[in-house]
Amino acid sequence: MKTNKKSKIRNVAVLTSGGDSPGMNAAIRAVVRMTHYYGVKCYGVLRGYYGLINDEFVEMGPRSVSNIIQRGGTILRTSRCKEFETSEGLKKAALNLSRRGIDALIAIGGNGTYMGAIDLGKIWKGKIIGVPGTIDNDLYGTDSTIGYDTAVNTALDAIDKLRDTADAHERIFLVEVMGRHAGFIGLETAIAGGAENVFIPETTTSIDEVSKQMEMNYRNGKTSSIVIVSEGDEEGNAFTIAKKLQKASGREYRVVVLGHLQRGGSPTAADRRLATELGAFAVEQARIGKTGVCVGRVGGKLVLTPLKIAVHKRKKLDSFLLKIFKGLAS
Amino acid sequence: MKTNKKSKIRNVAVLTSGGDSPGMNAAIRAVVRMTHYYGVKCYGVLRGYYGLINDEFVEMGPRSVSNIIQRGGTILRTSRCKEFETSEGLKKAALNLSRRGIDALIAIGGNGTYMGAIDLGKIWKGKIIGVPGTIDNDLYGTDSTIGYDTAVNTALDAIDKLRDTADAHERIFLVEVMGRHAGFIGLETAIAGGAENVFIPETTTSIDEVSKQMEMNYRNGKTSSIVIVSEGDEEGNAFTIAKKLQKASGREYRVVVLGHLQRGGSPTAADRRLATELGAFAVEQARIGKTGVCVGRVGGKLVLTPLKIAVHKRKKLDSFLLKIFKGLAS
Amino acid sequence: MKTNKKSKIRNVAVLTSGGDSPGMNAAIRAVVRMTHYYGVKCYGVLRGYYGLINDEFVEMGPRSVSNIIQRGGTILRTSRCKEFETSEGLKKAALNLSRRGIDALIAIGGNGTYMGAIDLGKIWKGKIIGVPGTIDNDLYGTDSTIGYDTAVNTALDAIDKLRDTADAHERIFLVEVMGRHAGFIGLETAIAGGAENVFIPETTTSIDEVSKQMEMNYRNGKTSSIVIVSEGDEEGNAFTIAKKLQKASGREYRVVVLGHLQRGGSPTAADRRLATELGAFAVEQARIGKTGVCVGRVGGKLVLTPLKIAVHKRKKLDSFLLKIFKGLAS
Amino acid sequence: MKTNKKSKIRNVAVLTSGGDSPGMNAAIRAVVRMTHYYGVKCYGVLRGYYGLINDEFVEMGPRSVSNIIQRGGTILRTSRCKEFETSEGLKKAALNLSRRGIDALIAIGGNGTYMGAIDLGKIWKGKIIGVPGTIDNDLYGTDSTIGYDTAVNTALDAIDKLRDTADAHERIFLVEVMGRHAGFIGLETAIAGGAENVFIPETTTSIDEVSKQMEMNYRNGKTSSIVIVSEGDEEGNAFTIAKKLQKASGREYRVVVLGHLQRGGSPTAADRRLATELGAFAVEQARIGKTGVCVGRVGGKLVLTPLKIAVHKRKKLDSFLLKIFKGLAS
Repeated sequence: MKTNKKSKIRNVAVLTSGGDSPGMNAAIRAVVRMTHYYGVKCYGVLRGYYGLINDEFVEMGPRSVSNIIQRGGTILRTSRCKEFETSEGLKKAALNLSRRGIDALIAIGGNGTYMGAIDLGKIWKGKIIGVPGTIDNDLYGTDSTIGYDTAVNTALDAIDKLRDTADAHERIFLVEVMGRHAGFIGLETAIAGGAENVFIPETTTSIDEVSKQMEMNYRNGKTSSIVIVSEGDEEGNAFTIAKKLQKASGREYRVVVLGHLQRGGSPTAADRRLATELGAFAVEQARIGKTGVCVGRVGGKLVLTPLKIAVHKRKKLDSFLLKIFKGLAS
Repeated sequence: MKTNKKSKIRNVAVLTSGGDSPGMNAAIRAVVRMTHYYGVKCYGVLRGYYGLINDEFVEMGPRSVSNIIQRGGTILRTSRCKEFETSEGLKKAALNLSRRGIDALIAIGGNGTYMGAIDLGKIWKGKIIGVPGTIDNDLYGTDSTIGYDTAVNTALDAIDKLRDTADAHERIFLVEVMGRHAGFIGLETAIAGGAENVFIPETTTSIDEVSKQMEMNYRNGKTSSIVIVSEGDEEGNAFTIAKKLQKASGREYRVVVLGHLQRGGSPTAADRRLATELGAFAVEQARIGKTGVCVGRVGGKLVLTPLKIAVHKRKKLDSFLLKIFKGLAS
Repeated sequence: MKTNKKSKIRNVAVLTSGGDSPGMNAAIRAVVRMTHYYGVKCYGVLRGYYGLINDEFVEMGPRSVSNIIQRGGTILRTSRCKEFETSEGLKKAALNLSRRGIDALIAIGGNGTYMGAIDLGKIWKGKIIGVPGTIDNDLYGTDSTIGYDTAVNTALDAIDKLRDTADAHERIFLVEVMGRHAGFIGLETAIAGGAENVFIPETTTSIDEVSKQMEMNYRNGKTSSIVIVSEGDEEGNAFTIAKKLQKASGREYRVVVLGHLQRGGSPTAADRRLATELGAFAVEQARIGKTGVCVGRVGGKLVLTPLKIAVHKRKKLDSFLLKIFKGLAS
Repeated sequence: MKTNKKSKIRNVAVLTSGGDSPGMNAAIRAVVRMTHYYGVKCYGVLRGYYGLINDEFVEMGPRSVSNIIQRGGTILRTSRCKEFETSEGLKKAALNLSRRGIDALIAIGGNGTYMGAIDLGKIWKGKIIGVPGTIDNDLYGTDSTIGYDTAVNTALDAIDKLRDTADAHERIFLVEVMGRHAGFIGLETAIAGGAENVFIPETTTSIDEVSKQMEMNYRNGKTSSIVIVSEGDEEGNAFTIAKKLQKASGREYRVVVLGHLQRGGSPTAADRRLATELGAFAVEQARIGKTGVCVGRVGGKLVLTPLKIAVHKRKKLDSFLLKIFKGLAS
């Protein structure tokens, strides 16, 4: 974590990169408004790192971000950019930043965004601050990422609706939620949705045991069940697991894949607040010369974590939630 | 449409059958409250025709239906019952109804429910009234079925969320909605969601034309698109159509299947109102001796249609909506 | 209803006036897209009749209305304009329209908007079509106005939430909904919300009778109640009625006034569809030379009504809903 | 904080008291399911302390709490009970608890509930654990209370809707939110709603300054504004403040009071999770003999706080949010 107290920034650029997440607009708004408040000029970069390479900058003022705090998606657009993984791409980006006299870049996104920021930091002298924007919550350095709370509530809303149908028909539903490498959405929606079981990458769930539990549920008068599946579970996706469970039990399992709709929607209060805090905090930290770090909220406090640590360390699931799960589903 | 003005009913049974739809509880409530109001005894039959065969009746009073008008699903449960298609099944059902002195049965459901009601009417003397409860809206005899408005709004909510992501990433999404035989949900969500195109069973949509339109959209600055697909389209489901479009255009099409979550959820105001009206109207019509008919609202008026006509005639999509679609998507 | 088959319009202006209602943007979008589709130029007028007088016109094309179908409010802004009731104001407006060669004006709004349109029609030669946009549904010539379905659902959502609290505390809530002259929102939310009673301008509701009913409810085990009050009821607003009921019964009545929040929000599917249809239909009717009329949907059909009739005739509440209300609340 | 490691509880009672809050049902469910899981018998007490005095106990098992995690309100009902502040009341309650052999009471509610628990602890030997259930978040010992997140999102949803209307009409709205003694809801909704200003009890807000800011906003092109008012602000409620601002500025301020509807509704994911964790944690802590304490989550960790401290210490607003507010509203 390099610090240069004397540095005073004059021009900031902000971008969103990777998968979009609800709250990205709130973070952009906070960056734009706070830079304006401090008399710093702010540019938005379109389409993430792609726009950095292709020189797609737009000047932004307080009115550019009016009425966006409640919008899903990102007004700056986003993309996944392969060229940014090449040295030519990085050089072009650095050149574009330097030509405009930009001395700080605020990059909102997930793990891939942070890795790009680390690479850029090797050849560009400006300050770089990462802001955690991803629905999966699989980023070290913050308890919650921007968009995670909204994604969980969106998934939960779907689960509540499926519960109506599951009850009415006395059926078992397997609901696949996002989470290729991490079970945060899976575990949280399972707890909040009152699910009967959950398949997540971090734990080993036995097909046989789940199958037996469902039988026991039936005998105890629980005629419908919801089972949550993280897309990245080691037993396979929801369709694969459905087949295995059907084979083990003879019962029918219906599958619903929530998919991309978990990404969108108006951000929740918690995501708007987090995005606003982290965007404003990023501006403040850039002003006092921090670089190569990402912002986050851990244990209720705003903190900085070196990007290199953030991309390598793995955040753990809440052990208390895992412990009580079985008791709750009784 | 047989009428017997002298008949005065004393015992009514109500059931829900087939796929559940939001508003079924509101219809049950209306039947229970209005029978009570008229001094008629009311029984709920559990699990649809299955409960009729297996004698699963529960007495219901005004308090049995407290606080259910806003709930999705059906408190009486529902099922699809093969045994009801056999003469043994029908005889058992008729016997159970007769033994309890039930003189009117109100059956809430879709096409299959109506067909079961017709069969039962051949061997049971009581009055039978159908109430249209299905999200697909593919029932003749009513402009809108109970649950349709909610399903459309649920699908629309998902489409609005996907629009955020489609815009942010400048992508094309194919969204598959329910509708095996009819494009009501498809067309309505496409219009209301501002979709760029729609595939529905009632019309022929050319893959080539859609592909060309998407290219034109790009050139006109429309960098993201939503295309709605009814599950029963003649070109196949959303995955099949995505492959065809990708082949025709070289562009990537992402697929989202909304599936069962369109069935659940708290019913909208329109569905609660329609369910309430039709439930109450069914009771009134049974009281004045109507039988072998289903209730509906057509052109703003409450009407009766013989069940035999309802199951055979096909309701048409709105021709004006079809006509203006292309202009709206410009 | 004057018709001139030969007339072919070349320039259309569209405005929103009076109270905003959800779906106005969908109507604007339909007007803009359909005029474009037919090769007609379209101008948006800002701030309703105020902008007509003050020459606030903006050219609009298909991209001007991208991504607005789901937004509440109106991108054209709206106002109530006293100057438009003077002959000077009207003259300025007519002059501005003529100078730009506009040959058709589409005015989206309520009763006041229609009256302004009638006045303008006396001194301006262009075609004028009214589109019913108001949450109150108190406009003759259409079964439902644009925004009404959304307003009812918004109010209903609030009522569902209040039911939770009323139940938990075993309390009685009086909920005041919009409707200065008409009880459409009041009656519909009362039916759909399962309210125990309703005060609406069209009917006389006795304080004593309601008070007695509440006592009876208690004795029958109904320990909480929701009573809906239209703001324009003859017994007064919700606070006045609460005082009267408290005096009559000794029980405590809590008051919630929903107020302006009923105006906003993303329009429902039904409102987006209606707005789209009526906007498109208005363009078509202007093209074939209709003028001095408003568009509407009555009994499922798109219809025209002379503005003079629309502003004077009164639409009636559904008599079947009124008839069954007491039975449902039992 | 007294601890008795040897103690093993056999009978637990759970109640909800004071104002209801979304998530109370999720907390009840967690208590019932976890006691069952540990082989402990569980009673629900109806109507809070009132039911304790009047011996309203019901036995509860896992199926008693099926399908309630998503419901607002409280299935156990709640009340504010004056008699519990008398020694006779307390004695009756203690007697009822002892007669049934209850050795632990879990009381879900706010400050008043905690004070009642302290009083009861003086004359009853069983273990008493408080669980923070109140929408206002004004309880020491937990970063967030059960129901707070839902209330903020409900208020926010209303503010988003009002923003549509404020924009359309270019108006200023004063929105009164709950918070008699604390500005948590006020500040959080102001930040998340992008409000232009906020009146909260913890800070002094100058009428003149706000009035001047609104003028400046107008000159900067911000033609509509939302100002949040906590009901307990020192300048008065929203109506009073509106009058003062109107007098100071000559501009019109519209008032919306959200009121009781902030209490209800289906709890958010965060509230369901928090309620589930805290309910389960309360059972675990009672099992290991803790008493006279309340549970909470502070800095991401589950913690205990003596009830006596919880009722006297005051939780502070987030200073960073207060600091950045002005910059964000630019």
